[in-house]
Amino acid sequence: MASIWNNRISVSIFGEAQGPAIGVTVDNLPPGEFIEVQKLHRFMERRCPGIHEGGEFTQIMSGILNDRTTGAPLCAFIQNPKVEAPDFSQLNRLPRPGNADYTGTLRYRGFNDFRDGGHFSDRLTAPLCFAGAICGQILERRGIYVGAHALEIHGIRDKEFDHVNVSKDDLLAVRGKSFPVIDFDQGTEMLADIRAAAEGGESLGGIIECAAVNVPAGIGSPIFDGLENTIGQLMFGIPGVRGLEFGAGFEVAKMVGSQNQDAFYVNDHGHVRTTSNNHGGILGGISSGMPIIVKIAIKPTPAIGAMQESVNLSTLKTEKLEVENSTEACIVPRMVPCVEACVNLALLTHMMDYPHFN
Amino acid sequence: MASIWNNRISVSIFGEAQGPAIGVTVDNLPPGEFIEVQKLHRFMERRCPGIHEGGEFTQIMSGILNDRTTGAPLCAFIQNPKVEAPDFSQLNRLPRPGNADYTGTLRYRGFNDFRDGGHFSDRLTAPLCFAGAICGQILERRGIYVGAHALEIHGIRDKEFDHVNVSKDDLLAVRGKSFPVIDFDQGTEMLADIRAAAEGGESLGGIIECAAVNVPAGIGSPIFDGLENTIGQLMFGIPGVRGLEFGAGFEVAKMVGSQNQDAFYVNDHGHVRTTSNNHGGILGGISSGMPIIVKIAIKPTPAIGAMQESVNLSTLKTEKLEVENSTEACIVPRMVPCVEACVNLALLTHMMDYPHFN
Amino acid sequence: MASIWNNRISVSIFGEAQGPAIGVTVDNLPPGEFIEVQKLHRFMERRCPGIHEGGEFTQIMSGILNDRTTGAPLCAFIQNPKVEAPDFSQLNRLPRPGNADYTGTLRYRGFNDFRDGGHFSDRLTAPLCFAGAICGQILERRGIYVGAHALEIHGIRDKEFDHVNVSKDDLLAVRGKSFPVIDFDQGTEMLADIRAAAEGGESLGGIIECAAVNVPAGIGSPIFDGLENTIGQLMFGIPGVRGLEFGAGFEVAKMVGSQNQDAFYVNDHGHVRTTSNNHGGILGGISSGMPIIVKIAIKPTPAIGAMQESVNLSTLKTEKLEVENSTEACIVPRMVPCVEACVNLALLTHMMDYPHFN
Amino acid sequence: MASIWNNRISVSIFGEAQGPAIGVTVDNLPPGEFIEVQKLHRFMERRCPGIHEGGEFTQIMSGILNDRTTGAPLCAFIQNPKVEAPDFSQLNRLPRPGNADYTGTLRYRGFNDFRDGGHFSDRLTAPLCFAGAICGQILERRGIYVGAHALEIHGIRDKEFDHVNVSKDDLLAVRGKSFPVIDFDQGTEMLADIRAAAEGGESLGGIIECAAVNVPAGIGSPIFDGLENTIGQLMFGIPGVRGLEFGAGFEVAKMVGSQNQDAFYVNDHGHVRTTSNNHGGILGGISSGMPIIVKIAIKPTPAIGAMQESVNLSTLKTEKLEVENSTEACIVPRMVPCVEACVNLALLTHMMDYPHFN
Repeated sequence: MASIWNNRISVSIFGEAQGPAIGVTVDNLPPGEFIEVQKLHRFMERRCPGIHEGGEFTQIMSGILNDRTTGAPLCAFIQNPKVEAPDFSQLNRLPRPGNADYTGTLRYRGFNDFRDGGHFSDRLTAPLCFAGAICGQILERRGIYVGAHALEIHGIRDKEFDHVNVSKDDLLAVRGKSFPVIDFDQGTEMLADIRAAAEGGESLGGIIECAAVNVPAGIGSPIFDGLENTIGQLMFGIPGVRGLEFGAGFEVAKMVGSQNQDAFYVNDHGHVRTTSNNHGGILGGISSGMPIIVKIAIKPTPAIGAMQESVNLSTLKTEKLEVENSTEACIVPRMVPCVEACVNLALLTHMMDYPHFN
Repeated sequence: MASIWNNRISVSIFGEAQGPAIGVTVDNLPPGEFIEVQKLHRFMERRCPGIHEGGEFTQIMSGILNDRTTGAPLCAFIQNPKVEAPDFSQLNRLPRPGNADYTGTLRYRGFNDFRDGGHFSDRLTAPLCFAGAICGQILERRGIYVGAHALEIHGIRDKEFDHVNVSKDDLLAVRGKSFPVIDFDQGTEMLADIRAAAEGGESLGGIIECAAVNVPAGIGSPIFDGLENTIGQLMFGIPGVRGLEFGAGFEVAKMVGSQNQDAFYVNDHGHVRTTSNNHGGILGGISSGMPIIVKIAIKPTPAIGAMQESVNLSTLKTEKLEVENSTEACIVPRMVPCVEACVNLALLTHMMDYPHFN
Repeated sequence: MASIWNNRISVSIFGEAQGPAIGVTVDNLPPGEFIEVQKLHRFMERRCPGIHEGGEFTQIMSGILNDRTTGAPLCAFIQNPKVEAPDFSQLNRLPRPGNADYTGTLRYRGFNDFRDGGHFSDRLTAPLCFAGAICGQILERRGIYVGAHALEIHGIRDKEFDHVNVSKDDLLAVRGKSFPVIDFDQGTEMLADIRAAAEGGESLGGIIECAAVNVPAGIGSPIFDGLENTIGQLMFGIPGVRGLEFGAGFEVAKMVGSQNQDAFYVNDHGHVRTTSNNHGGILGGISSGMPIIVKIAIKPTPAIGAMQESVNLSTLKTEKLEVENSTEACIVPRMVPCVEACVNLALLTHMMDYPHFN
Repeated sequence: MASIWNNRISVSIFGEAQGPAIGVTVDNLPPGEFIEVQKLHRFMERRCPGIHEGGEFTQIMSGILNDRTTGAPLCAFIQNPKVEAPDFSQLNRLPRPGNADYTGTLRYRGFNDFRDGGHFSDRLTAPLCFAGAICGQILERRGIYVGAHALEIHGIRDKEFDHVNVSKDDLLAVRGKSFPVIDFDQGTEMLADIRAAAEGGESLGGIIECAAVNVPAGIGSPIFDGLENTIGQLMFGIPGVRGLEFGAGFEVAKMVGSQNQDAFYVNDHGHVRTTSNNHGGILGGISSGMPIIVKIAIKPTPAIGAMQESVNLSTLKTEKLEVENSTEACIVPRMVPCVEACVNLALLTHMMDYPHFN
């Protein structure tokens, strides 16, 4: 595996869904940063509501003293609940469609921990979230805010952020909600649709939109470590992500240059801005000072109730597979903080090269 | 800058659009690989037709002896033509909208080479192309073929590859064409549209679709170096890329799980395959043995003929900017081999961890 | 900090001497490797005898299932004993000479955990040892053995390994001893000297010699990742290392070429060997098939009983400092497995590029 | 190969001794740094006197505009002289003892460029030197000076630098000399010894001592990227290096703690200093503000005139080998700037994390 991400900040993730624990080590954090633990837990709860009961409490093992980062690696640890593991022995022979059961078995020659997906489980987004939550507190102290919402679920579409004028308050408003959308009515419809899907043994895909505001112009290191490269590399660490776009994204394919162009002007505060934001806050891999806008497509979770076709890897014959307990009809809302976490990590990594960072 | 990409294969790109030369060093290539130089040049010509006249001839400086890789770094060198440089002094003050002029000036504190975009120029895709062309020959010797086409330009849409059955021959068929599309008629329409845009001083965006066939199941190293992470990081090294999707991509947001699921079966040759390919050949960051399908959105080139709004960075006042000589109305066709190059690099890097690679 | 080492194998170390726990994540281990846990503990006990009583028991949190590596990150965890921490508050003001108290305070702006050295403590060699112990088992299954001994302590000198003919059995013989020397008598003298030093409140430095046998010829990746580069980078991760040499080491400065040269010949088994081994088994950064010979100089631990001169960092005035409890008069014997661990890590990392590795 | 070194500064070296050219790309240099080209050439001439005649003139291809770094990759290029290559075909069969001919052939399966050592040639220290020369100018503008001298050749020993009080002027004094020693008489003796060795077809080894002054306290990132780790990794990129030590080095093995300890005090300028410098300016991987002291052992070049024993790799039989033209009896003086170059690279890389770097 390559579950270590190395840039100015490093992140090393470990654990399996049914092993003793999962966790993360974050290295090269700036020293002296005040970390509010309660706020970390609130961030984590957005990924997994009710975690205090479920045993997903995160324990910090190193790197923090007197509530401040020490500059040494910060390790956080999540004990796995002592659930009775279901019998996953058949999954090794009979891989679940849409999961990594089949490809993981080939890649790791059958030695991968296949119980509940093992290291491929979306449970591993918890340590990723935690790393991003730490970075988020460091960014917010410098005025940089990152927020996301469920833009679309199964075709039901929330309002978009205002790509030119989205503010910190807009982001915090979504963060405070139990269901992460801008438009309450669309959220209600989504929830109803998710419930219907759950009852029908179905699952739903969606799109998450993420914005970062107050990012100073001038961070990012092209050609291969520009903001898009970094965000791109991190974001595909979230299982189920099938697409990623910045600003106008795939819409640019329908545009002519004069439509897509974002004209520069100077605003009342003397800052250079653009009148539109099709570039999504990034030009040539470097932040422009406009809001950074990213959209992420997440596929319907493969855990559906229906009887499915698979192949018995021992006999190489087709067999029916029934995964009893579809865990969740739509993971899109829970992936909202994970998307924020990736953007937080990317931004803090690049902020550390910013001359005025302190 | 961070113009070095390090993975199992390393790529280090250098040069500016109006400097003496541009080039690339590719390190850790497997030794003993036969490299056909004429084939490299043909690959390069797809990015820039007529390069032999224009002085874009690539010269290999190291790493090859008797037509075979030595295992030492392979450096390739492209002398820049001795064109009379236009006066770019105003661009430093008056950044072109949609370019890296403004952000590059902030990031590199005004010392960046701004002549014709400098290191940000899409001319720097030539060394990237070259690195990918080398990797492509190594992959093809093992039966792995990567090919792309202009799927869409300004709303005019080519046929898609058959995501389940696309073959090496399908890819080679497009590669042999002067305009990289599957459907001749759509290509003719695109060409007419590009010509009209050029006459009107406009530019056009588009989508490139890329497929890789015969990739063995079981390559890729999640969480952070799975195939999507690697391809994602590399692809945003091409200027103007605004979006990236795998398989069904953003369409997954409209689907329910049972629609998106790709059922496993065993084909007549005893190989595990899937009946559909919404997963785009990658599950959990690891190849499944199905064709790998990637789509890339490329924005209209910002070099348009119209008078544009910009900001004088000395006076911080709005000024009109006219970029005289719009170089090219649509770079999408020329970016086709660059997209292939990124996929080649990603695949060879991961193939080197494949147990049966030799 | 940069407590993550990335190569083909990655190692991420965390923890502070007086924090809740220390540990390590090892990533990209080959899957399916049988790991004998008791043997890991025996390796760890050589670094810290009697650890089962002292609470230094290492717990594996991930990456192993049914006693075999899964290919996912292997995290090991060592709970710190719940000792009553002495008052280290003065150390922050009054740095101990020879320690990282002063430099760490500057580097991490006073936020570093200074209790007992924090992340700088030689206690952090425990997770390093553990990572090396894992690698050692994987190497030994392939016939590669690494062993070390205390070559010199305070001028008392053990026999050297036979640089040409040292065998696996020679290495295992030392490993089985309670005091890691070849010559019992010299060991007895060293022990007496250490005891005298302890009584006198002194500490002692020394040299560790390490050999690796049966390393196949042809591993290592020059210029910057040859075997010496890798071993060099890792070895200075052990606190107190002041020198490193390969083969004849600093002796080469007294030699002429014909003395230093190691002539090639073919042995009875048809293998290319050298008659002498001044090159220490490495030529041009690549293994030659001869034993790899490394020597490491370790300074006397700075924790001495004498009253010492230091500077109060608040007042910037000289003050006397008395460190009460000199922990240990000579750490050289305990560093023997740590030196082996570094060589194990370096060798396994390079073995993964060896074509016949499986 | 792994001829790319990545840290905050990246260095990518390419070329073979008898190929068209050798060179280097240095990435992520700070922008706006004034680079004096003549001074670069003077640095290079110390490695290879008379290079202007010999065709070793270095040409900068990118990354500098108006004599200042642009922030983009800086590529430098050294055309190889058009010498008639001697017939090296026998070397592939008959590897020269002490060279990488044998190990390189195994590692790169016989495809390595063996002409004059190819990529293993010490000619490849020229691009390394160049990269270090660039970094040196950036450091010197901030008052940091690095200098080295031939401390010992074949047992003849120069004076050491004063480890406590060595100054910028001491370093510049050596730099100005045609033979890099402190003590003229010892230098004269060394020169006579080298001449005698040359006449006798012999070669000589030696030790280089390097000092860095005015390095601010507080740079370096332990555990694996402390100053010793970085310097260690780089230094073994110079062919023939067999040993490396910091401060008191291997002498610590003879010391007790109270002898080795360097007491802190405050000097007249209010700076914290140590009374002695056995720690060589580095404590816990981090600079202490004292001079950084490194010593490097370099083996006698294997190119000696005597008939030598080798093994014919085709027949696996012992054969005599005569290398006609022993290039040089002692490379130690020419390696002096190469050692400086490695320290320059290490220091600039770590200075970029220093809060007051600008």
